[in-house]
Amino acid sequence: MKTPTTLEALIQALRCLPGVGPKSAQRMAYHLLQRDQAGAGHLASALVDALTRIRHCNRCNTFTELEVCELCANPARDHRTLCVVETPADLLMMEQTLAYGGLYFVLMGRLSPLDGIGPREIHLDRLLNRAQDGMIEEVILATNFTVEGEATAHYIAESLRSLGIRSSRIARGLPVGGELENVDSGTLAQAMVERRAL
Amino acid sequence: MKTPTTLEALIQALRCLPGVGPKSAQRMAYHLLQRDQAGAGHLASALVDALTRIRHCNRCNTFTELEVCELCANPARDHRTLCVVETPADLLMMEQTLAYGGLYFVLMGRLSPLDGIGPREIHLDRLLNRAQDGMIEEVILATNFTVEGEATAHYIAESLRSLGIRSSRIARGLPVGGELENVDSGTLAQAMVERRAL
Ligand SMILES: [Zn+2]
Ligand SMILES: [Zn+2]
Repeated sequence: MKTPTTLEALIQALRCLPGVGPKSAQRMAYHLLQRDQAGAGHLASALVDALTRIRHCNRCNTFTELEVCELCANPARDHRTLCVVETPADLLMMEQTLAYGGLYFVLMGRLSPLDGIGPREIHLDRLLNRAQDGMIEEVILATNFTVEGEATAHYIAESLRSLGIRSSRIARGLPVGGELENVDSGTLAQAMVERRAL
Repeated sequence: MKTPTTLEALIQALRCLPGVGPKSAQRMAYHLLQRDQAGAGHLASALVDALTRIRHCNRCNTFTELEVCELCANPARDHRTLCVVETPADLLMMEQTLAYGGLYFVLMGRLSPLDGIGPREIHLDRLLNRAQDGMIEEVILATNFTVEGEATAHYIAESLRSLGIRSSRIARGLPVGGELENVDSGTLAQAMVERRAL
């Protein structure tokens, strides 16, 4: 028997999800068709909504439906400090610590030359412009303590230094090789307090 | 910061996929938005296509885009033998063994009273009608060797017996508790050969 083309296409399309191989894509497709057609419909429209409505904040580059996200537009935040993180998930982790009241810049990645991710892909120009807005007094580099995250922090620190802008690095309270997403709030808060100048 | 509503909706919608919890749904959403918007678009349209085009074969109940699937419509198959499997994935596994040339009936599940899955949900009436078409000489029960799969096989065997229809069970060549999907073709082929009358 030939699997129907539409079903094959769905199984193939599900493989765009990270961590989903051929077997689990097949299981997902069958599950949706057999048990959760309503869920499949919601997922399809949620994807379309996300693709049409979600954009990057003009200031911090995180995902938002606005030109400038609520956090960047909030006058109660400390507009003198800019915390640089790799992903929106890291931004949310940082917010959960309640240890930081400043602004953010989200790289949407980390330097990874082998994957073709260079300064342009992490929006370095926008970050440097952002850091030169006349308000920012300190840039805190909160990329992961992985090899790539460290390299990214040092590259950004050098770029900022050449513009005469101070930067600091959150403390290595995180385990070496650790990622912000998988760390408890307390450790991350401590790492924030113990940040050191670069 | 509030996560944008559209993003929250996408993360929530991704959780309809089996095995996807809050953390991996978030990772999937970020991945699609950051790295694979084309993939997200394909997935959305593949879901819509699947929901609109895929239906159940009138004869074997598997997924198809036709009224009667290609396998059921194939005159070269042995139309005297009906193999009952739980899912379309099991049907494909069976086809891969090349050990079987007859027809199928796909239950789209197994009896599971605690989950509210009874004879109606596994389409027992349609199976019994199908088995009484005048052509079928043997029904082979190839449900899984799990507790529920065994109970399903015995329930179907009893129902068929009361209509005077013979059934057989594939051999327990599969490990106890084993599922067809996770077994190699050789073991499954052997189990098919050694099927016993019920
Ligand atoms: Zn922003
Ligand atoms: Zn069919």
